[in-house]
Parts: sequence; structure tokens; C-alpha cells
Amino acid sequence: MKNYPYPLLNPPTFVWNTLNAEERDVKVHEWIATINGQEMDWTDYDVTILGVPLSKSSISSSSASENPDAMRQAWKSFSTYNLDEDVDLAELNVVDLGDVEQHVTDIGYTHERITEAMVAMRKHHPHTLPVMMGGDHSITAQLVKGWKQAHPEETIGVLQFDTHFDLRDPSELGQANGTPIRQLLEAGVVKGEHVHNIGLHGFFNAKALKDYADEHGVHYTTVKQARKKGIEETVRHALRELDAHVDTVYVTFDMDVLDMVHGPGAPAATPGGLYSQELFDAALIAGQHSKVKAMDIVCLDPRKDIGQTHVKAAVHTMLSFLTGYCQR
Amino acid sequence: MKNYPYPLLNPPTFVWNTLNAEERDVKVHEWIATINGQEMDWTDYDVTILGVPLSKSSISSSSASENPDAMRQAWKSFSTYNLDEDVDLAELNVVDLGDVEQHVTDIGYTHERITEAMVAMRKHHPHTLPVMMGGDHSITAQLVKGWKQAHPEETIGVLQFDTHFDLRDPSELGQANGTPIRQLLEAGVVKGEHVHNIGLHGFFNAKALKDYADEHGVHYTTVKQARKKGIEETVRHALRELDAHVDTVYVTFDMDVLDMVHGPGAPAATPGGLYSQELFDAALIAGQHSKVKAMDIVCLDPRKDIGQTHVKAAVHTMLSFLTGYCQR
Amino acid sequence: MKNYPYPLLNPPTFVWNTLNAEERDVKVHEWIATINGQEMDWTDYDVTILGVPLSKSSISSSSASENPDAMRQAWKSFSTYNLDEDVDLAELNVVDLGDVEQHVTDIGYTHERITEAMVAMRKHHPHTLPVMMGGDHSITAQLVKGWKQAHPEETIGVLQFDTHFDLRDPSELGQANGTPIRQLLEAGVVKGEHVHNIGLHGFFNAKALKDYADEHGVHYTTVKQARKKGIEETVRHALRELDAHVDTVYVTFDMDVLDMVHGPGAPAATPGGLYSQELFDAALIAGQHSKVKAMDIVCLDPRKDIGQTHVKAAVHTMLSFLTGYCQR
Amino acid sequence: MKNYPYPLLNPPTFVWNTLNAEERDVKVHEWIATINGQEMDWTDYDVTILGVPLSKSSISSSSASENPDAMRQAWKSFSTYNLDEDVDLAELNVVDLGDVEQHVTDIGYTHERITEAMVAMRKHHPHTLPVMMGGDHSITAQLVKGWKQAHPEETIGVLQFDTHFDLRDPSELGQANGTPIRQLLEAGVVKGEHVHNIGLHGFFNAKALKDYADEHGVHYTTVKQARKKGIEETVRHALRELDAHVDTVYVTFDMDVLDMVHGPGAPAATPGGLYSQELFDAALIAGQHSKVKAMDIVCLDPRKDIGQTHVKAAVHTMLSFLTGYCQR
Amino acid sequence: MKNYPYPLLNPPTFVWNTLNAEERDVKVHEWIATINGQEMDWTDYDVTILGVPLSKSSISSSSASENPDAMRQAWKSFSTYNLDEDVDLAELNVVDLGDVEQHVTDIGYTHERITEAMVAMRKHHPHTLPVMMGGDHSITAQLVKGWKQAHPEETIGVLQFDTHFDLRDPSELGQANGTPIRQLLEAGVVKGEHVHNIGLHGFFNAKALKDYADEHGVHYTTVKQARKKGIEETVRHALRELDAHVDTVYVTFDMDVLDMVHGPGAPAATPGGLYSQELFDAALIAGQHSKVKAMDIVCLDPRKDIGQTHVKAAVHTMLSFLTGYCQR
Amino acid sequence: MKNYPYPLLNPPTFVWNTLNAEERDVKVHEWIATINGQEMDWTDYDVTILGVPLSKSSISSSSASENPDAMRQAWKSFSTYNLDEDVDLAELNVVDLGDVEQHVTDIGYTHERITEAMVAMRKHHPHTLPVMMGGDHSITAQLVKGWKQAHPEETIGVLQFDTHFDLRDPSELGQANGTPIRQLLEAGVVKGEHVHNIGLHGFFNAKALKDYADEHGVHYTTVKQARKKGIEETVRHALRELDAHVDTVYVTFDMDVLDMVHGPGAPAATPGGLYSQELFDAALIAGQHSKVKAMDIVCLDPRKDIGQTHVKAAVHTMLSFLTGYCQR
Repeated sequence: MKNYPYPLLNPPTFVWNTLNAEERDVKVHEWIATINGQEMDWTDYDVTILGVPLSKSSISSSSASENPDAMRQAWKSFSTYNLDEDVDLAELNVVDLGDVEQHVTDIGYTHERITEAMVAMRKHHPHTLPVMMGGDHSITAQLVKGWKQAHPEETIGVLQFDTHFDLRDPSELGQANGTPIRQLLEAGVVKGEHVHNIGLHGFFNAKALKDYADEHGVHYTTVKQARKKGIEETVRHALRELDAHVDTVYVTFDMDVLDMVHGPGAPAATPGGLYSQELFDAALIAGQHSKVKAMDIVCLDPRKDIGQTHVKAAVHTMLSFLTGYCQR
Repeated sequence: MKNYPYPLLNPPTFVWNTLNAEERDVKVHEWIATINGQEMDWTDYDVTILGVPLSKSSISSSSASENPDAMRQAWKSFSTYNLDEDVDLAELNVVDLGDVEQHVTDIGYTHERITEAMVAMRKHHPHTLPVMMGGDHSITAQLVKGWKQAHPEETIGVLQFDTHFDLRDPSELGQANGTPIRQLLEAGVVKGEHVHNIGLHGFFNAKALKDYADEHGVHYTTVKQARKKGIEETVRHALRELDAHVDTVYVTFDMDVLDMVHGPGAPAATPGGLYSQELFDAALIAGQHSKVKAMDIVCLDPRKDIGQTHVKAAVHTMLSFLTGYCQR
Repeated sequence: MKNYPYPLLNPPTFVWNTLNAEERDVKVHEWIATINGQEMDWTDYDVTILGVPLSKSSISSSSASENPDAMRQAWKSFSTYNLDEDVDLAELNVVDLGDVEQHVTDIGYTHERITEAMVAMRKHHPHTLPVMMGGDHSITAQLVKGWKQAHPEETIGVLQFDTHFDLRDPSELGQANGTPIRQLLEAGVVKGEHVHNIGLHGFFNAKALKDYADEHGVHYTTVKQARKKGIEETVRHALRELDAHVDTVYVTFDMDVLDMVHGPGAPAATPGGLYSQELFDAALIAGQHSKVKAMDIVCLDPRKDIGQTHVKAAVHTMLSFLTGYCQR
Repeated sequence: MKNYPYPLLNPPTFVWNTLNAEERDVKVHEWIATINGQEMDWTDYDVTILGVPLSKSSISSSSASENPDAMRQAWKSFSTYNLDEDVDLAELNVVDLGDVEQHVTDIGYTHERITEAMVAMRKHHPHTLPVMMGGDHSITAQLVKGWKQAHPEETIGVLQFDTHFDLRDPSELGQANGTPIRQLLEAGVVKGEHVHNIGLHGFFNAKALKDYADEHGVHYTTVKQARKKGIEETVRHALRELDAHVDTVYVTFDMDVLDMVHGPGAPAATPGGLYSQELFDAALIAGQHSKVKAMDIVCLDPRKDIGQTHVKAAVHTMLSFLTGYCQR
Repeated sequence: MKNYPYPLLNPPTFVWNTLNAEERDVKVHEWIATINGQEMDWTDYDVTILGVPLSKSSISSSSASENPDAMRQAWKSFSTYNLDEDVDLAELNVVDLGDVEQHVTDIGYTHERITEAMVAMRKHHPHTLPVMMGGDHSITAQLVKGWKQAHPEETIGVLQFDTHFDLRDPSELGQANGTPIRQLLEAGVVKGEHVHNIGLHGFFNAKALKDYADEHGVHYTTVKQARKKGIEETVRHALRELDAHVDTVYVTFDMDVLDMVHGPGAPAATPGGLYSQELFDAALIAGQHSKVKAMDIVCLDPRKDIGQTHVKAAVHTMLSFLTGYCQR
Repeated sequence: MKNYPYPLLNPPTFVWNTLNAEERDVKVHEWIATINGQEMDWTDYDVTILGVPLSKSSISSSSASENPDAMRQAWKSFSTYNLDEDVDLAELNVVDLGDVEQHVTDIGYTHERITEAMVAMRKHHPHTLPVMMGGDHSITAQLVKGWKQAHPEETIGVLQFDTHFDLRDPSELGQANGTPIRQLLEAGVVKGEHVHNIGLHGFFNAKALKDYADEHGVHYTTVKQARKKGIEETVRHALRELDAHVDTVYVTFDMDVLDMVHGPGAPAATPGGLYSQELFDAALIAGQHSKVKAMDIVCLDPRKDIGQTHVKAAVHTMLSFLTGYCQR
């Protein structure tokens, strides 16, 4: 900036710009590129992040639509370097594509845009890993349908972390956030036996849904079972099973899988769920698997969050997943 | 209850049942009847309260859908006796009809149900005064359309308390909460010159909307103008104007008209609005006018509220309005 | 409701009533019956829930009096089906009797009513399981005294989950919430060796109370000891001991036994306590034991709660306990 | 402190002790003396402050018992100099006597101690002005009874700032916080026509209480009436009336008289009440009157307060009152 | 963006980009330009906004350093069109220069940078109006010194809105936030008689400071006096006085001048201050005056704010001031 | 107090003074002596507590300066008796020295006072154990330097519980809170191999800092590694290592080492840290070691805390440490 007379002025929130570059923390928001109207070379990027701020499709009132921006705000306090794994995410080139357009009153219109966005990502830069920030769980059905549309020949499996089955009947509720897995089963996009749900517990699913899951061969492991077996082994086991039968694994983190102490921002926050460290461990392992090709994070209402606990857990889950991706 | 062995047990929240009936406060929740599956004699009632828990149609994220229940909870701390006016609302017979059915993902379906509910009220017990608890402002368009459908011959005017014009373009946003007045104008249900808006202020409306209002002859009085003239005289003036030209006045209280200190729960809470006492005074006068035949309260998100300030103001607004109704 | 013209209207908070009954979640508030002035057939019920909204007897300021209603509100988000145990609580018939009458200024009067309520339950429908929602811990003394009055021949044991001994001296404090176990010992209603306390820890009991406990043979297991042994085995061991010596085990959950992260609503919330999952496991096992014949949940101030964490844990504790009861 | 080796260490919360004494703010907590076990010379003091931390006698759940300490904490941010009136309160000698002893479970015992404390103040240092910090409004009855006991020959009047009449029936509720004025009337300590209530409004009193007030000649001025007449003139008028008929005026500020925006901490916070500046103006005038000889501040629950708004208003009310006292 | 394949994707927070441009709200963040490393033509701009995120110099603990970013976030919900005045701020060209560099531990270094920034603004584009967002009040001394350095020949006056004199002694406190006006007086940059303070009230200034003000001829008007005279006339009067004696008026808004109900975020929030509407009216008039050439907003800690009340009031104050500036 | 006429009055917050002394809880604030201007006999004391309310040196905005008073307030709810260890801290004589003087604007001045305070403690009563309550982590460098100044011949080791290395470059940041360990290394006060850091995890340190740590031989154990090995064994191992090489071990607890669920008040709160019970166990073991001669607790901002969770954890950490000290 040639004629800028303020050598000592800084853009907001960055105040030590004279720091030794070697020593300085690179924060996540400095690392993730954003689109800015310039021509883009998609081959520059390994990962594409997409915001999907839709929560009008939630059964209970939810402001999960504010989660993409909340995560963007929260990741400013994370560095790119993962000390536990000695991995620096800065190796990856990541771009934040912005948010899918939302219609104020036509949820079906928005759902179509979500599917199109996935198709576009697969078509224009199929080498990138799509990472989606919801929004409520209804978006997962649209995104997986988009993948299927772009890759009709692939067998798709779903690795789901969730307190709920999400097998409610769309003929009753429409394409709401309790229904995505059932939508995919009914549409023939995914088979029941290719769904692995980890994190069910307590008093938060109707008996009929469990029966439906059993009839359709959906696999599920409760929190208690997962802890007994070890959370890491539970995830590895599910991935081994999927690896044997599908081409692509789509991972979906419904953030209500966390115990409400660790995830207070879920519209349906419950006691008895996973602890955040358990979820981070699971995400790392999922990220490492070569057939895992897309991931989303859903059902986190930042307005219900307490002290950013939940949003920071979501960011950490995403970064743990990307750490695993670096380790492939 | 013949064989109930617990003379000393009480239903929840009511613990001094041995109080002298004369002296005892009758609280609003003890006064308002509820439907319970028994056959009803509609001639028993003067006022019908209807919950309209729709806020999926909001431009900004809103849990105004929780307002009807929040008001029901808050009115437990209000008595029926208005000391300022020496009026006991217990003279009126009021029934809470419950909530209009909501579709989880089809906003249009819900909008139709809202219109039908108004039609049903006008058809089955046209002698009652409908009082609606929203929900966001999109419901006002549906409710007024319902009135028009039931009374096609009537000329309808709208007395609106609002920080906004609500004249945005439904062809862009759908039937969202920024559009209801424009919907009514475009549908020919209400004429621009029969709309009186009180409460505009500050930096919260686009210039183009003001131009649209001017073109269509919408009347409006800013907070500053209203205070200068006196809030009571401002309302009386608007009602006189309407009285001269319309058959029915529909009053709509967008609770964001309150200064955010008095109304922190509005999704678009702003400084510079009305104070709650000013709104109560306005509501009393509106309730007194014989052509005022329906009223709604909208755009209050109880999750954003602070210490029930806003919800209690909404209840007080409703009760002040009903006090005026008693005084007719 | 024959002449109700609003087929599309719903009672508040229930909006998808057209759902397939098979699939639909039955929520806890739909399952628990309430009294309504009709004649009752007590043989219809297996469990009677009683609210005891007394917290004026607390040493520190407490609004635990609001806990019964807070639990009633919170259980609306729980289903009856326990996925972990594959048990549907809907098998049980449960009725909520409402709250024990409270005197505004005479705590002794209220305490007498609490005892009478237990006597009435034991006399009028001794086949039901009484579940009490406090209130502060002073109520436990009154309730156990009521049981003893109804069953003078029985030997009663107490299984207590608590951060405190509750062995303070009633001659100093009156029948306050630090004293219930000592009251029972002094009154000869329960013997010291028939009390098993699980959950003591840290810096929250005077040395003199520990000495008193030792002198009277009260059994206690600290959080650390319980974790080392396994929380489930700790509870089973205590029950085996009690089973060998008493006729009836009364279980009391002082919700301050939870670590303040999991139970922020305790007036005396502390770090270092149990985690909620540990308490749920304990409650399940306690519920399974055939000699456990009554249970209470106390010392939870919903106003101190953060995001319903504590109240939902209390509901889950009650439901876990009832799951065990189903498994008898 | 001879051998204290830390010249640079300071007691907590006071960090600029080297400031020029002339310039330095004297904060209220530095000005108000406290008792410390040393022999006291009561002639040193003009005003005695007494905490009365009783709120177990509240009809609704209240932690007003924590108000005395909350006020002590909050007044640290107030200086002694009143700029508006150019009065320095440091002219007065004030001592904080501490709190009246509280029994954990026997409210009657505590009530007797409160009366005794007033008698002791009147007997041991009748030249001082007693200022009481409640606690709930039940304490006012005990305090005025204490005054009467010490001065049986005096005619006592009450100047009450309150949203409520406080004329409920003690034969039903006991000596609860809705009853103090009625207690005084029934006990013949104060006559109805010697009670002036300022601040009633809205829907917060039963019709029967208004009738009782009328029958007993209690004077009352609603918020609306007071504003129309001017709050200062309203208070002056009431004092003139009292001056003509009584020997002593006891002033009681029920802090729920404030609009809930200005007084969110009242257990029964309501919209439509006084604004804090209006109450400060009233307190100043009350403090100036020579027959005003005692004052209390009640019904403020600091746990319900938001950002210390209410507690700071209570401190300011007390200091405005004392400013008036300086101006006598 | 030629090869961007996502026509339906939007940048975050902007989701209706297909709206008719005429009708669409232009929000403040869309209007205010930001620096981006491109060469700048300073003649394009009328107003330069500068963040000064320093609050380490506060006497009490303060996060006012977060205010510049908080205001940037909050102004996204304001439009550029002022309906009350029928002025569209979009007429002005405004650029946000970013924040002055902050040293983590050397406050003096930062203070020098602040002075330099003002000098640079006056030197490089003296035609622009500088608007500064603090930070605490210590920055005002540095900014006015910078102005004086750039314009040594000018006589400078200060129009201060404040609950405090800010005349504490820098020889004791250093250049802390209680001292800026005294610093300017002692440095001979401003004379006492050229300072007009509006907003003092209550118990928040030491007597010695009032005496100092009197000795140096500082003008001050308390809240009560200002209300009696009318806030608008009070400001006009001060400006007339200043107009007669100085070349340049620097306006400083210490946001603690607001009553704590309207300004809960001030580190020293107090009852008895101005209401937000009064401050907006004052800012409008100040902005209109031709000798007012710079303005700052200080002492607002967004972490103490409640529901954005205070930060939105700060934004509104700035926009009201700029409205006045448009009207010159 | 001979002539005090109020036998029934009590000082604030202590209301059951007639309790049997044997039985009564001694609370921590009753046990810790305070300085009061009387001559002191330093031989009376075993432990000296010092507040260091400095957080102006924090990189991110922090009110950790309020932590000493917050801990003093919070420890009122702790007893002196540790039930887990059957140790009564009342055996120790502890005095709270108050706070180190703070300069409002000169951080360097304050830092010098902190060093002097440690020197004074070592000189005037070297037999006492210094326990410091920060403040931010910058104080640790000053305190250890003070120890070195008093004991130049000693080799000092540091046992650090922290989410961060604190090895940032003071030549860039000054003596800020990210730099204390590097300051000590650069000053030659402590050697890299005599630093043991426990608690690093996740994405919160730059890679360059890890490299710096490796180059200087700093020992570190991540949360994951510590849990795998056992937190107790991890601490014992570090102490064994230190015991072999140093004369004195200084223990520093950066409270951000806690998972944000357990420690929400850290300015840089993160998920993935230690749980409070783990920290208590570590503190106990550290306190037991004979070479541990000083301890501090830093980086806890009580304003960010939620429901006192973090502050109570800090108090418990201090008391656990002192329990260990009793067991030496």
C-alpha cells in the first residue's frame, strides 16, 4: 500500500505484526483463504469449506443458521499447529467458499441450492475435500444426494455421530432435521447397512425409530458401548466395516452428540452424551481414513452456547478431522 | 374429587388455596379459560386468544415461535384488576384457543392455516374479539386476509406500532416478516391510506421503503413526533382518521417498537424506540375504540429477552388493550 | 370435542399431532398423568410423584422450591423409551399428585404436611412407589418419618448420594437442610449403621461431622473411593449391606453430589463431585433393587442452574431410577 | 504497623494509597465505620445502618436476604460527595451495625430479634437515625413495632414507596411480606389514614386490597398520578399531610416500586413502575423532612439483579436520602 | 469472478443479493470502506474512522479495548438512512482506517502512537473528519495533543459528555483514564474555560475535583440541569460559548454518561445518567456545528454490555453525529 | 465489646454464632488471618498468601486482576477439613498479606514491586511458604526472579501446569503473559532442562515455540500423555527429575490448563484440557514434595467465569496443595 501514511496502524484484531515470523502463531483465520472476487485457481486448494446456514427446517426452534459465522469467529483463537500429533495444518490449502444462498421463506428452494452446491464442488474441483458447516441436520440429506448425483456409480456409506437416529418420517415432517438418514434410505441413495451411528443414549429416541433402524440394518453403538469398547476402536471398527462395502464414506457430526456440559448449544442438548475429547479423537481417526471424502458439522445453535464451549468444540472437531486428513 | 385423600396437596404453583376468596388475587392464568376437549358454548366468551407460533418466516433468526407459551407463563404474575383504571378484567370471558398448527418445513402450509383460523373465528363466533400472539410479523398479513375473506364487504384499516414499515417486497423475500403491509396493499386487502404506523425512528428502514410508503399514502408518525404531540393524542388522531374511512381497524403491535432497554427480546432490537409505559397507554386507547376488532402482538423472541422484561411488557400491552375494551 | 371448529388448532407445544402414532415419540409429560378433580382409581397407578416445594429451611439461600415445576417443564424433552436398556417406561402407570401445601411463614406447619402426605400415600395406595421432588434436604427427614409412621414395624435404611453428611445438629439449626440424617438418628427412625452415604469429597464437611458419623457407624464412600471401586459396584455393595439388615431402603439424591460442572444449580455447588453419567448409573441400580421403596431428589435450585444442565440431570436421574424399577 | 516489611503492599481493593488525600475520592465503604469488637462511643454517630437479611418470609421465592451484603459491596463504587446538591455525606458519622441474627428455620424467632434490634437502637442511642437494609417487606412491620415499643406515646406515620398495598391478611399468610401494613393497622400501631403509599400501578394488586385500603383510609398515589403531579410535589404533599398528624414518619422503600427495567432484582418485578431518578428525587425530599426518623429498603433480590442495576439504585436511594438528612 | 462456479453462493451474512437494489437496505458495514492494501486516494473520503483499542490505562479493569471491533460488528444492523432527519449518510464517503498499533506492555509507547496517528490524519488528509472509537478516556488526551501538534496555532475547545470530570492528577496515576482533561490543562493544550462538560451527576466525583474544576473555570452542566434546560438547548448553549472563543471543538463522548440502564457496559456504570435518546439528540446537534472537527467515543466495555444495548447506543451516537455533519 | 447493646446482632455473613464450636464448620476465611495494622509476629505463620492483581500485561484482554478478591470471596464456602485425606488445614497458620501495589499505567513499576515483595517475604520470614494469587502469568517471571535475588546460590526448577509453553519472545512483547518462562531462561534464572510443563494440548501453541522448547531442553507432557501415564505418576515423575537437579521447585498453575468446561474463566479458555479433579490430584502431590517452596495460581479472569466454576477450582487447587504441604 504505497501511499498509506499510517505505518503503525493495523487492521483490527491483529496487533503484533512486527513479530518474528518464525515464532508467530499462525491463527486459523489467517490460514484459511477466502473468496474475494478475483479469478481463482482451484488446483491451489485441498479443502473447500462451505457454510450452510439453514435451520428453518429444524423441528425445535434453532439458530444453527448462525453457526457458520460463529465458527469463523471462534477459529481465530486456534493455531494451525496440532501439538498432540505434531502436524501443522498449514500444509493444507483450504478455502472458505462462503455460504449457500438462503431463501427467507422457501425451504425447498434452499434445499435444492445445497444439493447444487455439492454437485458444483464435485464437478469443478473433485480433488478437494468438502467440509460443510451447518445449519441443521436436514442439510446432510441434501449434501449426500448431491454427492450421489455427481457420482451416481459410487456406493456411499454414512458415519454418523449423533444422539438421535434421524430416521423420522419425511412424509410427516417434510425434509426436517429429524429425517435425513431416512430420506437417504427411502431415496435409495444410501442403504441401511451402510449407516453407522455412534453416540445414541438415554431417553431421546422413540422405540419405533429403533425398530425402524433394526429393520433396515442400520448399525448403531451407544455412548456406553462405545466407551466400553474404546471410542477409538469403535470408530475404527465402523470404518473397517464401511471400507469393506462402500466407495465413499460421508461423515456427519451432529453436535448434539456431546453431553450438554460439553455441548450446551445443541437445540436438543442432553446429559449423557460424549465428552468433547472423545469426539476429537473420533474425528482424528475419521479424517485419517482414505475413503472418507466429505464431512459436515450440524445442529449447533451458537445463541444457546455458553461461553463458546460448543462452538470451540466444533472448530476443534473440524481441525482434528483435518489433522487426520494430513496424516493420510 | 371424591376419593382424593390429600386435602393438603395442591396443584403446582398454587399454594394458598385456603385464602379468603374475596381478598385473593385472581391471576390472569386463573381467569383465562382453556379448551379441554369438552363441548364448548361459544356464547360464553367475549375474547378468543390464539397462539401463532410461526417464526420460520423471519428474515433474521428468531425464536418468536416460543412467544405464545412465554406469554402464557408470564401472565401468571399479573392480576386481573387494573388499579390505574379501576377495571377488573374478570368481567370479560376469555378463552385461549391454543396454537395454530405448524408445519415443520412448509411455511406456506402454515400461512394458510393461519388464515383459516381467522376465518373460523369470524364464522363460528363473530361476536368475540380475536387476540393473536405471534410469531413474527408475517402472520399479520395472513390474519388480515382471513378477516377480509370472512368480511369481504368491509373496509379494513391497520393501526401499526412498529420500528419498521414492513413494506419490503414479497416477490423477493416471499411472505416474510418484513413484508406484511406490502402484501396487504398489493392484494388490495388494505389501502395505503388506511395504514397508520406509529413508532418509526432512527436508522432502521431503507430510504426506498419510505418512498414506497409516501407513494402509497401510508401514514406514519415517528417516535419523536409522537412524543412531541403526546403518545395518547397521536393514537387518538390515527383512530379518528381511520374511523372516518374504514369499517374495521386491525391493531398490530410489533414489539420491536420498544426501545431495546424496554424490549430486549426483539430479533431486531434497537435503541431509540418507545418506552413500555408509552405502549401501554397506546394500547389502552386502541382497546377503547369501537372499530378496533382484532389485535396481534408479534416479533418478540423470548430467548433474547432479559429477565422477562419484554414478555411482561407484551402481556401488559395485551391487558391494557383489554382494559380499554372493557371501557367501551 | 364436538363443536370445536378448529381442526387445525393444537394445544400449546404440541404441533405434529397427525404423526403416525407408532413412530411418534411419547414425551414424558404425555405419559405422566395428572390429577384433575375427577374421581381416581388408585389401582391404576404404579408410581406416585409428589412435589415438595420447600426451601425456606435451607441454611444458604435457595430457590429449590421451584425445582418441582422446573422438572415438570424439563421432562417434556425426554422420551419414555430408554435406548440403553431397551426399556419403555410407558409400561409403568405414573401419576403426578401435585405439590404439598406450603405455609408462607410457618416451616413447622409445612414439615407436618410433608409427613402427612407420605402417610397418606402409604395408607391409600401402598402398592405405589413414592417419588418425591424437593425442595431442600430437610424434607427427607419428614418423608422418612412419615414412612415410619405408616410402617412402624419396618427397619428402614437410607441410601444417600450427597456431598455432605447432613448430620448437623437440629438443636441448633432447627429442622434445616443440613440436619435430616441426624434427625432420623436422634428420633430412632433410622440407625447410623443403616445409612450409606456415597459422594462425600473435598473441603465441604466439618471434621466434627465425620467424627459423629464414625461414632454412629454411618457408612460412607467418597467420590474417589467410589470411582476406584467402580460406581456401580459401590452402589451394589451398599445395597447388599442394606439388604441384609433392613426391610425398606429409602434412596435420597442430594443433587449437590454432582460436580458443579454437571450440577451448577446446587446452592452449595462444588468442584470434585460425581459426573452426571455416574449418577444415572447409580440410580439405575438403586431402582432395580426390590427393597428400594421410595426415592427423593433434593437441593437443586433451578435459578442457579445454567442452561438446564442440572434440572435435566435430575429428570434423567429419576427416569434412570424408574428404568431400574421396570427391570425388577 | 511497626514491623510490617511490605511498605508497598496494600490491603485488597485499595491500590493508590499514595494519592494526595485532598484530591482522592472517599468511597462510601471508607466512610461508613464498622463495629470491630472495640468499645464504642455511640455519641460519635449520627446514623446507624442495620442489615436485616430475612427473606424466608417472602410469598415468592426470594434471596433478598443477600441484599445487605450486596449493598455493602456496591457502595464501594460510590463517593461520599453529592455533586447535584453540593453536599458531602462525610459530614455525617455513620456506623454499620452488622446484621440482625437469623434463625434458619424459625421465622418468628427472627422477627422478634428484628423488633428487639429497633428497641435497642432507640434505647441506646436515640439520637441516631436508623437505616435498615432488608430483607423482605415483612421486616417493616417488626421494625415499626419496635419503634412503637420504644416510643409508645408517639403517633407514627408511614411513607411507603411500593408497587403493592401490602395489605394482605396475616391470619392467612402469617407475617409474610405482603402483610406488613395490615399488621400495623390491625395492631393499632399505625392508623390507615397515616399511611401514604406512592407507586401503585398496573395489574399487581387484587381489587379487594384496594377496597380494604379505601375502608381504612390509606392514602395512595399511582405512578401515573405522581408523574402528572410531579414526583417531588407528590412526596412533599404526602409529607405535609403526615406532618400535620403524626410525630414520626417511617419511610419504607419497597424496591419493587421501580419499573423492572430499572429494578430487575425485585422478586415481583413489573413494568410500569417508577424510574430510578424519580425514586432518588423522592428519597432526597423524604430525607429532608424533620419528622422522618427511620428508613428501610426492602424486597431486592441481588441474584435476580442484572449488572448491579438494582443494587446500585438501592445504594443511590439510601445516599440520596442521607443527602436530604444533611440538608435538614 | 470469472471462473467461480457457485452463482448461488454468497459471502457470509449477506443472503438476499438478488434484491432490487433500489429497495434494499444499505447497511452501515456495506457503506464504510475499509483499507485493503490497494493504493488509496484520500480525496475520496470525507470521514476517517480510527480504532484505538487501548484500555490498559483504565483505573478499573476494562475491556474497552474490544469496543472498536464490537462497534464494527454492531453497525451491521444499522441502515445508512436516518428516517427522523430524512438524511442518507451514504452521501458521505467514510473509510475505516483500522486500529492504532498497541504495545502489549508499554502503555507510553501506545500513547505516542495514538498522538502520531492524529498528526498523520491531519497532515495527509486534513479535509477529513476524524472519528475515533476507544479505548478508554486516556486516549482523548493523546488525540487532542496530536491535533494541537498538527495545528499549533489553533485554540481548541472540548465538549465532553461524561459522568466524571476526568480531572484526576496524572502525577499520581500516570496518563490514566481519569486524567485526560487535566493533562490537557496542565500541558496548556486546552484552557479550563474552553472545556464544557455535560452529564455529571450523583456520587461519582470527589469534592476536590469539583473544586479544581471551579478554580480552572471548567464549565459543567449536570444531568438534572441539562434536563431542566432541555438537552438540546444545553448543547447549543455550550457550542455557542465555545464558538465565541475557540477555533476547533473536539467532542468526546464518554459512554459512561449514560444511565446504567441504557449503558450497562461502562466499567463505572452508574444510575442517574442520561438516557440514550438524549445522547443521540446531543450528538446530532454537535455534529451540525461547523467548528466541531473531531470526535471520539470512549469507555465502553463490550464484555460488560447486556444484549448489545450499550454498543448499539454507541453506534447510534456516531451515526447521529454524522447525520448532523451531513446537515452542515 | 463491653458496651455493645446488640447481643443478637452479628457481623455480616455469619449468622449461627451460637453453634457448638466442636461441630461447627470452620470456613477458610475464618482460618486465614489478615493484616490489620497491629504489630505482627511472623513466627506465628507457616504460609503467606499474596495477591498480585496485575493483568494489564496480558496479550488478550483480561480481568485476572480481580482474581485475588474473587478467590477470597469464594473460599468462604470451603471448610478447612479435607475429608479425602483426613487432614485439617487448620493445623497450618496462614496469613493473607494483601495485594502488591499496582501502578495504573506503568507496568514496569508494578513488575518491580512484585519482585520486591518476594524478596521481602524471603528476607523477613524465610520459614513461610509463599502462595501467590495472580494476576496473569507475567508475574511468575517476577516472582521467580525475586526468589533468585533472595537466594542467588540456589538452583531453581519450575513445575508448570499450562496449556501453553509461555516461551514467547519478550523482546517483541515486553514482559507479557506469554513470555515468563522464556524470560527466566534468557535471564539465566532457570535452565530449560529444569522446566517441566504438564498440560499442553491441541492447537494453542505455535510450532516455533515447540522447537524453541526442544532446543532448550524444556520438558513437557501433553494432557493425553499425562492421562495415559496417570496424572499422579506424571507429576511424581517430574518432581523426581527436578529433585535430582534443583534446590527449589517453584510450582505455577496457569488455570487455563483446565478444559474450558472446568475452567471457563481463562482468557484463552480451550477445550481438551485437564479436568479439575486431575488438577487437584496434581496439586496435592506437588504440595507434598519437600523441595516445592513456592506456588502461584494465574490467568483466571473471574468476569469470564460461569457460576464460580473456575474460581472455586482455583481455591480447591490451592487447598489441595496446602493439604499436601500438611502431609510433608
